[in-house]
Amino acid sequence: METDSSPKGFVDTVINVRYAETDQLGIVYYANYFVWFEVGRVAWCRARGFDYKDLEDQYDRMMVVAEASCRYKAPARFDDDILIRTAIGSATDKVIRFDYEIRNQRTGRLLALGDTTHVVTDGSLRPARLPEEFQKLFRPA
Amino acid sequence: METDSSPKGFVDTVINVRYAETDQLGIVYYANYFVWFEVGRVAWCRARGFDYKDLEDQYDRMMVVAEASCRYKAPARFDDDILIRTAIGSATDKVIRFDYEIRNQRTGRLLALGDTTHVVTDGSLRPARLPEEFQKLFRPA
Amino acid sequence: METDSSPKGFVDTVINVRYAETDQLGIVYYANYFVWFEVGRVAWCRARGFDYKDLEDQYDRMMVVAEASCRYKAPARFDDDILIRTAIGSATDKVIRFDYEIRNQRTGRLLALGDTTHVVTDGSLRPARLPEEFQKLFRPA
Amino acid sequence: METDSSPKGFVDTVINVRYAETDQLGIVYYANYFVWFEVGRVAWCRARGFDYKDLEDQYDRMMVVAEASCRYKAPARFDDDILIRTAIGSATDKVIRFDYEIRNQRTGRLLALGDTTHVVTDGSLRPARLPEEFQKLFRPA
Repeated sequence: METDSSPKGFVDTVINVRYAETDQLGIVYYANYFVWFEVGRVAWCRARGFDYKDLEDQYDRMMVVAEASCRYKAPARFDDDILIRTAIGSATDKVIRFDYEIRNQRTGRLLALGDTTHVVTDGSLRPARLPEEFQKLFRPA
Repeated sequence: METDSSPKGFVDTVINVRYAETDQLGIVYYANYFVWFEVGRVAWCRARGFDYKDLEDQYDRMMVVAEASCRYKAPARFDDDILIRTAIGSATDKVIRFDYEIRNQRTGRLLALGDTTHVVTDGSLRPARLPEEFQKLFRPA
Repeated sequence: METDSSPKGFVDTVINVRYAETDQLGIVYYANYFVWFEVGRVAWCRARGFDYKDLEDQYDRMMVVAEASCRYKAPARFDDDILIRTAIGSATDKVIRFDYEIRNQRTGRLLALGDTTHVVTDGSLRPARLPEEFQKLFRPA
Repeated sequence: METDSSPKGFVDTVINVRYAETDQLGIVYYANYFVWFEVGRVAWCRARGFDYKDLEDQYDRMMVVAEASCRYKAPARFDDDILIRTAIGSATDKVIRFDYEIRNQRTGRLLALGDTTHVVTDGSLRPARLPEEFQKLFRPA
């Protein structure tokens, strides 16, 4: 799994579709795209120089999902290499939106577009603010 | 798992939160709500007098997800009984939208609101129409 | 979901196979049986008069999985009603083994046999003992 | 995700633990190790020069899981890099056993040992034999 930063501010990461992620329709089950979005967020954080884990462990800050949506354009199939592209859509010190593009890496075909909106909380799920040193990291490119 | 039809056209079904559905935040992982929506759709079909399975097996029709979204209001936790309420938001013979309410069954508290939009296809994922005998079933209440 | 205690000491609970649980082979993906085993354990605890949740929340005791195995006899399919039968295989105050039978509820056909072995720990995953009031509950029937 | 062949006949592949794979205990949910085993099998096939997908698509052969087991030695946590090591335990033209080691890649610590036994079937899940050109590939190293 490698990550790169594109000119548009997207951070890219690649996964390979697991058999477990397919359903009896022979394509990836729709809920799994939201798992991939999470993989994209973690890659985005790493490309920005921090581990999402540290935000939880060291700063007692969570990014709890408040909204999530996905538009499905074409199916993904077992063993496809999937390009997950993640960018910041908007960000304040309390609310962050990530945007996602899911593509077939080999063909470049767009498979899905999505976004997730997160509210910053403390470890007890109470509203909180991002630590100041993180705020600049979450500014859209 | 029992299903009932409410005056608003919602079909209700209840599940119990599985340990597998939680994450390290101690709450249900956000992607699992989309699995619950699917449980709601299956219950909705059953309450309307048919099995979703038959639509696939006997009529070679699929309802492929084109869009899905969820707004999260309050967390669900392990062992909570979850009320999944499902209704038709809109429907043509080619496109069907389901609306969902997710509630804590014991407290009645609203946990999430969501919707999914489905395109009718044949078994090869080509656009198709709902069999006529199903069309009236999908009319909003 | 209802639970009953059988003469053999099995506690029974029923679930309906979710679309999410199938894979492109058109049958339930093998890892999901272990999720069902967990559903069986929770039902077993409830039938014995306590919530597994309370063991964690009130007694700071976890039952961490040390071993798990499953022998698959026949496939489960979408929308099948699945009978999960759970019994204690053996138990000390430190180690507990559960045995499982997975059956198609309608036909009675045996789909899988499994077992999981659990080590009692405290909330920091250090070895611990079951609270005394729980020890008698875990004795095999 | 890269794969390498070790002197022992293990094929190695690395994944990063997803948030979705954790549970409220703060560690990876036990059923997910079986998903990782499947990732290991796919990597093993690829390292032997074929895609598991082709076995299904071009040869109408499935490797249906007949048995699966796992012994858990130490927990895996969110964002850990996990080394999945896969080898053939035994193989005939009808039954194949894979063995697995799961390790923390950074520390080398053993997290789990497992195995899965597969029966070769045709696409209708009837017992079948491996195509001859595949038989030599599955011989233990």
